[in-house]
Amino acid sequence: MKLTIDALYDAVQKRGPVCVGLDTAPDYIPPRERMHAASEARAVFEFNRAVIDATLDISACYKVQIAYYEALGLAGLEAYRDTLRYIRQQGSLVIADIKRGDIADTAACYARAHFEGDFEADLVTLSPYMGMDSIEPWFAYAKKLGKGAFVLMRTSNKGMRDFEYQELLQGGRLYHEVGRKIRALADECRGNHGFGAFGVVVGCTEPEEAEAIRREYHDLFFLIPGYGAQGGAAQDASRFLIDGNGGVVNASRSILKAWFSDFDAKNLSQAGYKDVAMAARREAVNMKTDILAACKANQKTQNREASSHV
Amino acid sequence: MKLTIDALYDAVQKRGPVCVGLDTAPDYIPPRERMHAASEARAVFEFNRAVIDATLDISACYKVQIAYYEALGLAGLEAYRDTLRYIRQQGSLVIADIKRGDIADTAACYARAHFEGDFEADLVTLSPYMGMDSIEPWFAYAKKLGKGAFVLMRTSNKGMRDFEYQELLQGGRLYHEVGRKIRALADECRGNHGFGAFGVVVGCTEPEEAEAIRREYHDLFFLIPGYGAQGGAAQDASRFLIDGNGGVVNASRSILKAWFSDFDAKNLSQAGYKDVAMAARREAVNMKTDILAACKANQKTQNREASSHV
Repeated sequence: MKLTIDALYDAVQKRGPVCVGLDTAPDYIPPRERMHAASEARAVFEFNRAVIDATLDISACYKVQIAYYEALGLAGLEAYRDTLRYIRQQGSLVIADIKRGDIADTAACYARAHFEGDFEADLVTLSPYMGMDSIEPWFAYAKKLGKGAFVLMRTSNKGMRDFEYQELLQGGRLYHEVGRKIRALADECRGNHGFGAFGVVVGCTEPEEAEAIRREYHDLFFLIPGYGAQGGAAQDASRFLIDGNGGVVNASRSILKAWFSDFDAKNLSQAGYKDVAMAARREAVNMKTDILAACKANQKTQNREASSHV
Repeated sequence: MKLTIDALYDAVQKRGPVCVGLDTAPDYIPPRERMHAASEARAVFEFNRAVIDATLDISACYKVQIAYYEALGLAGLEAYRDTLRYIRQQGSLVIADIKRGDIADTAACYARAHFEGDFEADLVTLSPYMGMDSIEPWFAYAKKLGKGAFVLMRTSNKGMRDFEYQELLQGGRLYHEVGRKIRALADECRGNHGFGAFGVVVGCTEPEEAEAIRREYHDLFFLIPGYGAQGGAAQDASRFLIDGNGGVVNASRSILKAWFSDFDAKNLSQAGYKDVAMAARREAVNMKTDILAACKANQKTQNREASSHV
């Protein structure tokens, strides 16, 4: 059995560290296409398919934020199911961004929901607040089916300072305690490249902490949000990677809405999925190029520093 | 506009503090009924309807754990929608136990998903890990539509010790920091009975902490899980209430599976929804009676203590 985390590592090695986030709000869809679709939810799926087709060969994986689909009710969840299925049919990997977290019995239901059946994903995101018994039922799927997960550690939003950043009496911040416990769990199931089956979510904001975080959790794969629309830059993101791997960098809005910059209010009605696809690809390629260039620059600096220490 | 938290207070005053948890696993359903149902998911809804009809007049509200429905895929979420709708049509209140928690834009999508449309609930449960900007978009619905929520504070599972119980450098445990921040938020929107529009989840395990917790958060409504199958007793639960109100005590398995004790392996196949309903009602009535008796006993003790101090 090949661990998903190994497949993800290979995908990054081959196609770069960009994770395309499909947080598709209906108003990202060109008005003409939205009007002609059988339903709003169907238009969301068709939009996603256009973006996926245009980015398959230059992205490591996709992240689908389920909230955008839940917001459209049952029809939205049909589009969610179809999007996951389409990505996997194309031979890519999909992270279900669901941030679930509940007591063990309930976590087992959730794991069945998102690692099997209609909503089967390759990896998921999880929330650690309730403790490790809320994570373990998911981990059983790592051992059984090779599935992967990213547990929220240090996120990219302003509110992370409220709880994640709390200094603990025992030393270190809360997010480090989460990282340490996930690492201990990951020790039970590691892939061929040395990364645990489960990794963590580490936002690419606050880049001054990157070196320390990357060093301490060198054997955990990172899901790195916060790029683009959320303020993170290629230089920042690159510092959370290890020679361009060991993590995927997610961007959603900057890719999905890239087509807007090719149109103005007057000709907006002419835009179609072709334009969405072209702009999304351009944005994802730029992002990949920028991040890999920043990774190379980091390596040169490190080499220079290493040789000056000889 | 009447706040949902006020409606919930009134419901407890009228019908007692029992919250019936509809964490309905398919194997709780009598085999005969399950066999005759159009689908497994449909059987789940029919089972729920039987339990709801039998407990409407003796329960404050219902809590529906969405994980059990997600586990059945799209068909399960149809049963979830139908269950929520049925409860609200009967004039009772429903807590969607979803424990969502995500960055602000995403939280706004989730809030739309669970406070409007197919999955509209009266109250939800939320996870605080990512901070207050993950809670605020939900709170906008308290101000706009009177909706309510319970934020995870101190849960009833073993794993709560991993993070919730961490001692902070600034003093107190993490869960207190969550409680304090939710209290500050709740100050912006309080109901007629003095409780904030948003409350917290406090498990009825570890009852020795009940007095301190209840005193500190006297103006927050509690959702109290952990009763029955999870080990909590009436005496424990009563200590997290204020004269029998200020919280609802949830039981799921002990109510849903009560009918099993009326049958043995030989006559299991004779069981039907009538038996489920009768046993669920009996269990819920016992629970209500036990908790209210324990509340009365607490009051007597307090009165005795108060008068001995004169």
